[in-house]
Amino acid sequence: MYSHHFSINNIPFGIASSSSHAHKSVATRLEDTVIFLDELARQYPELSKETITTFSNETLNPFAALPKSEHRATRKWIQSHLINLTSLPLSTRSPLSESTLHLPFAIGDFTDFSCSREHVLNAGEAVFQKRVLPTGFEYFPVGYHGRTSTVVSSEAPIVRPRGQYRDATGSVVFGPTKRLDYELEIASVIGKASVLGEPVKIEEADEYIFGLVLLNDWSARDIQGLEMTPLGPLHGKSFATTISPWVITLDALEPLKIPAAPRTAEIVLPPYLQDPDPAPTFEIELKAEIQPKGAAEPTVICTSKFSSVYWTLRDLVAQQTINGCFLRTGDLLATGTISGDVAGSNGCLLEMVAKGGVEVNINGKNERRMFLDDGDTVRLTAYAGQGVGFGGCVGTILPAK
Amino acid sequence: MYSHHFSINNIPFGIASSSSHAHKSVATRLEDTVIFLDELARQYPELSKETITTFSNETLNPFAALPKSEHRATRKWIQSHLINLTSLPLSTRSPLSESTLHLPFAIGDFTDFSCSREHVLNAGEAVFQKRVLPTGFEYFPVGYHGRTSTVVSSEAPIVRPRGQYRDATGSVVFGPTKRLDYELEIASVIGKASVLGEPVKIEEADEYIFGLVLLNDWSARDIQGLEMTPLGPLHGKSFATTISPWVITLDALEPLKIPAAPRTAEIVLPPYLQDPDPAPTFEIELKAEIQPKGAAEPTVICTSKFSSVYWTLRDLVAQQTINGCFLRTGDLLATGTISGDVAGSNGCLLEMVAKGGVEVNINGKNERRMFLDDGDTVRLTAYAGQGVGFGGCVGTILPAK
Repeated sequence: MYSHHFSINNIPFGIASSSSHAHKSVATRLEDTVIFLDELARQYPELSKETITTFSNETLNPFAALPKSEHRATRKWIQSHLINLTSLPLSTRSPLSESTLHLPFAIGDFTDFSCSREHVLNAGEAVFQKRVLPTGFEYFPVGYHGRTSTVVSSEAPIVRPRGQYRDATGSVVFGPTKRLDYELEIASVIGKASVLGEPVKIEEADEYIFGLVLLNDWSARDIQGLEMTPLGPLHGKSFATTISPWVITLDALEPLKIPAAPRTAEIVLPPYLQDPDPAPTFEIELKAEIQPKGAAEPTVICTSKFSSVYWTLRDLVAQQTINGCFLRTGDLLATGTISGDVAGSNGCLLEMVAKGGVEVNINGKNERRMFLDDGDTVRLTAYAGQGVGFGGCVGTILPAK
Repeated sequence: MYSHHFSINNIPFGIASSSSHAHKSVATRLEDTVIFLDELARQYPELSKETITTFSNETLNPFAALPKSEHRATRKWIQSHLINLTSLPLSTRSPLSESTLHLPFAIGDFTDFSCSREHVLNAGEAVFQKRVLPTGFEYFPVGYHGRTSTVVSSEAPIVRPRGQYRDATGSVVFGPTKRLDYELEIASVIGKASVLGEPVKIEEADEYIFGLVLLNDWSARDIQGLEMTPLGPLHGKSFATTISPWVITLDALEPLKIPAAPRTAEIVLPPYLQDPDPAPTFEIELKAEIQPKGAAEPTVICTSKFSSVYWTLRDLVAQQTINGCFLRTGDLLATGTISGDVAGSNGCLLEMVAKGGVEVNINGKNERRMFLDDGDTVRLTAYAGQGVGFGGCVGTILPAK
């Protein structure tokens, strides 16, 4: 039985460096050891030269752009050597605690879709007191483009953004946001690029998805509220987005495939969104925790399930490209906040406002949080099963400048 | 007197190649001659080595990232040699007709703002039958992030996109858009990058703007209509955005500076949007033409003025960075559709629907256009004065696949 997120069944890919391996390179992880693939390939040069060359890069992009067959060969090669981790030369590995994990990708474009029906209903209720889906929601994945320059890796601090918003009296004021929120999301990272003008068929979507990361789409709800109509969110989100440092491949998730959530029966989707795969998604248990400054332990504030989302990651690839738009290596296609329909499954704080917020525990004392305080650390995690998990996607709120 | 868009007063920057200069490099243009700066510098190596090196790049990014002092030195150096264009060695130049102009930049992020009050009022009237500004409009520039992978250079064909939208009966259908539109815009191209977490002061905004281009934010109004609430436009615009190939520098526009348009008196802007510059913008005359397939001549369908926009390009830099977001070399900050308040100044077709569309002339015969037909060529141009213009930003509509 495997229960660690990074068992031999996982073999994630990331970019790491360490005290003994000072330069950034492609890396993987087995439990709490980071293994540097450039050095592993120097010791065991059993892969194609083209593949080995990509290991020395400072981003995953060149490796991710290789054919899936090369990713699979690399995965098997890693597994064959990690069976005996302690016999590997010391030059190939560092303890996680002595390693630095970097932003794994140079991001191309970042689209954040709206895949969770429950989130949309809950957010609509919170903002407009109406529990109604937007018109487009059940016809195709709606979404918005996010900022790519401010996508940061886990552990990067998040400075409370400033902007304009309505205060309690209804006046528009300028200052640090008072409604800073997290959003619990999963994103596909694109490997193979597609072609301008050529939609990717839904049955071929997996060929373009290199793997998955956790994503926290930090949101300043007050700033977002003032700007949102009619062009959608911009300054309320563009200050930061955090992604987890390890990309979990579809190969690792393959044994965990399950059917998609049921769709509204009355709506017949166009062929480009009809997926012939009977098990096009995965069960992944998602969790969000807040650890206030000074608290010895984090408090779990949300657990939700990836299986609940209305649109799959394959749907997002088909939707993004149906109009001729093409994908580049390093693009992010995210799900939007993933919320469930039971208590404790709300993937952002906005959904909890009407319910009085969430309770966080600070060394035995409970405190109410409507939104995030300075000093709060938000940690997203996700576990798929059979020793395949995502690790953490972490950010701590620093005071506004 | 100078009347050509590309007189000695302009000295734009772009990326070009030609039959006699097969590789892409940084180039400028004098009237109808393209001058390759890598070759000019080989003949007259009078600039810093660091600057000369950037001329061999396939994008303007390395050159644009240099300090403004280097841009100014380069501009003066070019002007000193172009005085006697015909005496320049043939290796340094090609006729425009024998040259290929390429996408000038590797785009970082692309934000499309909403700067024209008249456009917003007209579009609101067209879609919601309400002539009202969105709440945020007068407080700060609202906007949305655009897709960067599909930003193309002038002359690239535009394939009619497919998507889901409501047909005349109100049913949601999938097919080629029936409401394909153009949008007449100007965009800043960012030169110097800013720093994460450090807002750019409005009085320093010009230091970050390398120059300006024309931008056509192609829009499928029916697809956009179904997806727009609440997250804004995505698939209705992500299929293509065209920019003009020559970047017009702020140095070229400097003698043409004028005061900004008046603002709503009752609203006191926060300091970050209070510009001490009494002349922070430019007068630029913008024009949009449609030339249907087979038509010998284009028809002018819009003339509008850049001076009419509510927010300046300097405001956009201040707004984009106030929340801690940073700018990278090659970012685009666009104005949104620029419309005026007189007849014939509507910068997109959507605004004309209620007025019966526009009339285009096809070899003496008039035709009504509500939206763009296959075969239509849309040409945007802009002229600032004193021999400084933008040339064309052109795209022809191809049928859906």
